[in-house]
Amino acid sequence: MSLERASFMQACLELAQIPDHGLLPNPRVGAIIVYQSKIIAEGFHRGPGTPHAEIAAIRNAEKKGFRKFSQSDLYVNLEPCCHLNKRTPPCAPQLIEKAFKNIFIAHLDPHPLVRGNGRDQLRKSGIKVSVGLLNEAAQDLNQAFIKNQTRSETYITMKLALSFDGKMANDSGQSQWITSEASRSFVHQLRNQTTAIGVGSRTIEIDDPRLSIRLRQKSEKFSKLVIFGRPKDLKSKKVWKVFGPGRIIIWDEKIEKLPRRLYEDHGIYQLLVEGGPKLASSLLLKGLADELHLFYGRGFIGGKGRFSLGRDWTLKSLADSVSFQPQSAGLIGPDLYANGRLNVYRYHPKNR
Amino acid sequence: MSLERASFMQACLELAQIPDHGLLPNPRVGAIIVYQSKIIAEGFHRGPGTPHAEIAAIRNAEKKGFRKFSQSDLYVNLEPCCHLNKRTPPCAPQLIEKAFKNIFIAHLDPHPLVRGNGRDQLRKSGIKVSVGLLNEAAQDLNQAFIKNQTRSETYITMKLALSFDGKMANDSGQSQWITSEASRSFVHQLRNQTTAIGVGSRTIEIDDPRLSIRLRQKSEKFSKLVIFGRPKDLKSKKVWKVFGPGRIIIWDEKIEKLPRRLYEDHGIYQLLVEGGPKLASSLLLKGLADELHLFYGRGFIGGKGRFSLGRDWTLKSLADSVSFQPQSAGLIGPDLYANGRLNVYRYHPKNR
Repeated sequence: MSLERASFMQACLELAQIPDHGLLPNPRVGAIIVYQSKIIAEGFHRGPGTPHAEIAAIRNAEKKGFRKFSQSDLYVNLEPCCHLNKRTPPCAPQLIEKAFKNIFIAHLDPHPLVRGNGRDQLRKSGIKVSVGLLNEAAQDLNQAFIKNQTRSETYITMKLALSFDGKMANDSGQSQWITSEASRSFVHQLRNQTTAIGVGSRTIEIDDPRLSIRLRQKSEKFSKLVIFGRPKDLKSKKVWKVFGPGRIIIWDEKIEKLPRRLYEDHGIYQLLVEGGPKLASSLLLKGLADELHLFYGRGFIGGKGRFSLGRDWTLKSLADSVSFQPQSAGLIGPDLYANGRLNVYRYHPKNR
Repeated sequence: MSLERASFMQACLELAQIPDHGLLPNPRVGAIIVYQSKIIAEGFHRGPGTPHAEIAAIRNAEKKGFRKFSQSDLYVNLEPCCHLNKRTPPCAPQLIEKAFKNIFIAHLDPHPLVRGNGRDQLRKSGIKVSVGLLNEAAQDLNQAFIKNQTRSETYITMKLALSFDGKMANDSGQSQWITSEASRSFVHQLRNQTTAIGVGSRTIEIDDPRLSIRLRQKSEKFSKLVIFGRPKDLKSKKVWKVFGPGRIIIWDEKIEKLPRRLYEDHGIYQLLVEGGPKLASSLLLKGLADELHLFYGRGFIGGKGRFSLGRDWTLKSLADSVSFQPQSAGLIGPDLYANGRLNVYRYHPKNR
């Protein structure tokens, strides 16, 4: 693998990560145009209805008066699209018009209407297309999108706030606040990435949270809310005012059906679960949580652990536990933070 | 505070941290000699019986043929010593002989025979002495030494290996292995820093560990072992072979007496506790643990939490919990790691 090429693709991955809000149902994509080993222009996708990364990069190049596309290479972390089933025109024809010399793609688009068709269109026009550069890193960036496209299921992220000894509340149920203001502020960033938020009905009844997203100004931009179990007297609760009837989903079916039903019936691409120990334990044990954001704070609170994870699990051996390996970790304010995936989604057809 | 001076003192702190083994009862010290804003020579202390950092730096300067000490500044993170009650000659007279222009010291030596006397000797000779540069960072480096000298107590470090849901073993008592080989290998580095290791008698009975230090070759260099509670049939256990009778201390007194008695009666400067949940909970709740090394590994093991921390605590409110804020964090292999202090020791007489 050429180091120069890898560093150009790395630049695409970094561009793709610029938006601080979620882009779903669209993927995160960055693109750069390289002429004589120099980056001429960059582009990235800002969300549904806005130009795709490749087109943004072309426009940026043209603004600078650049015209030598046919002597340039284009790097992009996702296969250029070729279908008309969306608000923006397909990218492949526009790249063909510019007649790029080489196009480097990290991985093929798992979208049912693309899946190699974009690559094939480009190749037929005479452009040299190479697929596979930083493939895994690029797929890591778009796990929710890949799960959506390949399985028609909602990507489920879970936030857990625990004391350092692993309790979600003390024995009398007090959980405000185990983690610091700094961590809770970071949770608002996580909320800003997701399509919907999920909580247990007990949380609604006892804590009566707003579950708003500080980073979003208008109520129209709020996510949907999934409440697990049926809370009594929902209409007196703050979430009723914030979300309103149309955006609250009461979930009291089998938990296994969650990813498919939320996706197909409710158009939820990503769900951030901020539930209590029962809900969290169930999602963990059944392998339904795809990604974890773990916060340890406060200290050691002791007690019998009434509100700790997996109280009703009866795993016989350590080997039966739900494995977890964080991929990144650090301090957020006074708290310990870790992020990692429990499930990994890959789209690996003939990639070349 | 001059940035240049701070960076020279920072260099001392980094030198002080070079030895990968513990130096107790001696402190970690680094020294540099600066002539015309350039570092001429460096030195650091390697442990009892070896030259102090200042003397090591002077020797390194002389090896290079450097002689202009009277036009040079010396930086050292601890006050130069002036007492004869040890294996090496005192430093202050040797610095006076070299007639340094300025000596910058991070903090005074809390050793009862120094405590400002070194500084005073130097000043009387006409050397300009400044105390206080990076004082706090320098004291952070020598917490065990400062606790020893100011309180005549053992510094107690605790290692905790927990599942991500905070259990030290599953309900049937299985704890091998919650953390990975990478973390366990790091624990051998921690063992290499300490004077003694402490475990509960249950650990000796059930796990029958060697509690050796892989990084040390010879058995003479092994630490002492403190066993909490009286294990049955100790002589058949591996630790009996590794440590032998003279180096095993059976602790069955009140836990509050631990830091003073271990220091005064047994000459233990630092104790690394690798105990089970009962011992760990007791040291935490009573404020006896000074520093924590926390490892989260394996995943979520669930159950009733028979082997979790603070089972018998009955704290009424979250505000009563044992507060903990890690100072550093990261990944060790697949595990989450955090390190932090529960107690902070400072020596702050008139520092100037």
